Amino acid sequence: MTNTSDAVRALATKGREAAQVLRAASTGQKNDALAAIAQSLEANATEIVAANKLDVERGIENGLAEALIDRLTLDEDRISGIADAVRELIALPDPVGEVVMGRTLPNGLVVRNVRVPMGVVGMIYEARPNVTVDAACLALKAGNAVLLRGGSAAEESNIVLVALMREAVESVGISADSIASVDEYGREGATELMRARGYIDLLIPRGGTGLIQSVVKESVVPVIETGVGNCHVYINADADPEMALPIVINSKTHRPGVCNAAETLLLHKDYPEPGAILKALVDAGVTLHLDSEARGLAEAAGADSAYLRDVTEKDWDEEYLALHMAVGIVDSVDDAIAHIRKHSSGHTEAIVTDSVTVANKFTAGMDSAAVMVNASTRFTDGGELGLGAEIGISTQKLHARGPMGLAELTTTTWRVEGAGHVR
Amino acid sequence: MTNTSDAVRALATKGREAAQVLRAASTGQKNDALAAIAQSLEANATEIVAANKLDVERGIENGLAEALIDRLTLDEDRISGIADAVRELIALPDPVGEVVMGRTLPNGLVVRNVRVPMGVVGMIYEARPNVTVDAACLALKAGNAVLLRGGSAAEESNIVLVALMREAVESVGISADSIASVDEYGREGATELMRARGYIDLLIPRGGTGLIQSVVKESVVPVIETGVGNCHVYINADADPEMALPIVINSKTHRPGVCNAAETLLLHKDYPEPGAILKALVDAGVTLHLDSEARGLAEAAGADSAYLRDVTEKDWDEEYLALHMAVGIVDSVDDAIAHIRKHSSGHTEAIVTDSVTVANKFTAGMDSAAVMVNASTRFTDGGELGLGAEIGISTQKLHARGPMGLAELTTTTWRVEGAGHVR
Repeated sequence: MTNTSDAVRALATKGREAAQVLRAASTGQKNDALAAIAQSLEANATEIVAANKLDVERGIENGLAEALIDRLTLDEDRISGIADAVRELIALPDPVGEVVMGRTLPNGLVVRNVRVPMGVVGMIYEARPNVTVDAACLALKAGNAVLLRGGSAAEESNIVLVALMREAVESVGISADSIASVDEYGREGATELMRARGYIDLLIPRGGTGLIQSVVKESVVPVIETGVGNCHVYINADADPEMALPIVINSKTHRPGVCNAAETLLLHKDYPEPGAILKALVDAGVTLHLDSEARGLAEAAGADSAYLRDVTEKDWDEEYLALHMAVGIVDSVDDAIAHIRKHSSGHTEAIVTDSVTVANKFTAGMDSAAVMVNASTRFTDGGELGLGAEIGISTQKLHARGPMGLAELTTTTWRVEGAGHVR
Repeated sequence: MTNTSDAVRALATKGREAAQVLRAASTGQKNDALAAIAQSLEANATEIVAANKLDVERGIENGLAEALIDRLTLDEDRISGIADAVRELIALPDPVGEVVMGRTLPNGLVVRNVRVPMGVVGMIYEARPNVTVDAACLALKAGNAVLLRGGSAAEESNIVLVALMREAVESVGISADSIASVDEYGREGATELMRARGYIDLLIPRGGTGLIQSVVKESVVPVIETGVGNCHVYINADADPEMALPIVINSKTHRPGVCNAAETLLLHKDYPEPGAILKALVDAGVTLHLDSEARGLAEAAGADSAYLRDVTEKDWDEEYLALHMAVGIVDSVDDAIAHIRKHSSGHTEAIVTDSVTVANKFTAGMDSAAVMVNASTRFTDGGELGLGAEIGISTQKLHARGPMGLAELTTTTWRVEGAGHVR
């Protein structure tokens, strides 16, 4: 036991005590806490921006990439956006208390399976300070205490955000220990979160592949793996070009930096207008990594050759998160299925076809969290699927698969009522 | 990479290929496979008993405890019992294809959340050869391939059982690779199962605390923790003695060696007939580990003092799995809740009371997989709760909590149908 280990466990123990009270809190009280948080973030925007400025300046000094600096930066508008997202949680139904299943057995036992909070949720994430608020508020609405470990790049911002949220929940009679950070313990704090089995009920890593894989491998606390997306779009021979082109363009370019963006395009060899798709991708600024057949088609379509490269074996497994796309020509839907099963990260795959048989074959053959038929991969998103706010997209098979919202931050318990029943 | 690692991964890869076909198998075909297994076990009972005899003889030579020898032993009757359990699975509804949630969104996207098989399930268990058949058949009905690692004590029995099951599923056109064992690789085989992330989708340890904890800590494959039960019964002041006594006796003595047996009894100080319960327990052969007040009550009731011991701090955490019980007197339901939250393994707790307020307080205060009001702890069981056969009782909060049946051996996937939808 190190001092950090003791300190993290002490925080988790306080969190557990807070969670024990929070699990019985009414929906009204939890919503009041969310409203207080939203109000406080806006009221203290100046203080938040000042702290954030220190992080941004340090980031620039340390040579952080521009895109990361942008994600890190908070201004009044962004803070209002964060506060609005918190207010949207108020409108969502409380998952706690939902009777998932209930029946009276022949012997008269009344059996109910009821949603209850997890307890203490740990969250390890990177440089986006909005995640600090998102994660704490989703956990709170689901009746959980939360222990946060944000990236050191957002350290000053997170100190202020956590302090404001603790104050806000306390103002409505919820223990401040419901929201805590282990940031002051640095990397060791993260490591201790992963070791705190029995103290923390669930650990959610959110960030790049490296972070997620290291948490998955090192943690003895149950983990939910989120958000690595090597998503595919397959265009069948019979696909309507009027659907196929916009679906490919939207899947790739609508927001290339997120996990439900497509990274690989597979075209059936008999699809009539492959050149139009490849040229449109290049015109949208996408660098294509093509097999030889696809390259021929792109060149014949007059795509700017500066954007054409030969695909490598590694490309098929790449999550570019940028305007790059691997492109291959396949002989059949079976070949497409085989390719995707070999290379997919299990996030989202899309097919464009007008054949029920082909669509069903493709859907049945996938082993991914989501399959889209004639729709963009970008719809794998809690809000888009009508599920409400999400804490991440799970690409694992246990507990949560796909968008993880409030329900996935709860567990269930069996409640059985008898009248002196024995076996 | 060791040779064993390669061998286990090769088996898992074959299992994955088999699972890819199995996920599309009809319920009828899976049921035919189960019927063929049941029939084969009975038809080859002589061969199974002969192999089992070698295990039993070796067990006796190695000084295995009598209870373990009993669990290990198979005769024609027990084999019929195992075959009957397999036939019972045929009647259970197929979880695969169940639409868990479905809706059409305002934009016209048709969204369904559908149950699909996990893929490859690994199972690490101890000396009971019936688990070999149970686990393989539950996994099969849920559309999964299974990799088994049984205890070395049942080695010879398991070789025959696995060979018969592989033959049986093949006879109905399902790949024999759907059921395989890594027993020939000994302990290293178990270790490699735990390391085979990406090859195995779910690992279920079933056995004693030591086995389960070591799998939970070492495995990088997602694990479901099963079956450690330090279950409590709390008798409130107003409990009806006509209910309280049989519930305590049933919870403790009906089958003391299983995880839903009660291990601790907490009595409210004002419950009118504590002596009758304590004497009845002793008369049923239960050794009591009592706090000083409870000891006084037991002695006053004339309980045989040979069965009375002073409780130690360790007793409160003990899963005796035997005719022993820790007994304490508490001042209130709040004290009972505090005690149970400190010592429970999160399996099952029971209360006997006639007060709605007290029952609700107790139920809300527990953080366990099941809470019984006026019923025996023994009802936490898949069959008893009307859920069908179970592969274990989960005491963790992720994915499955309480009895794990067929549905818990599946995952879900999102299937979204559009008509060219983009964001």
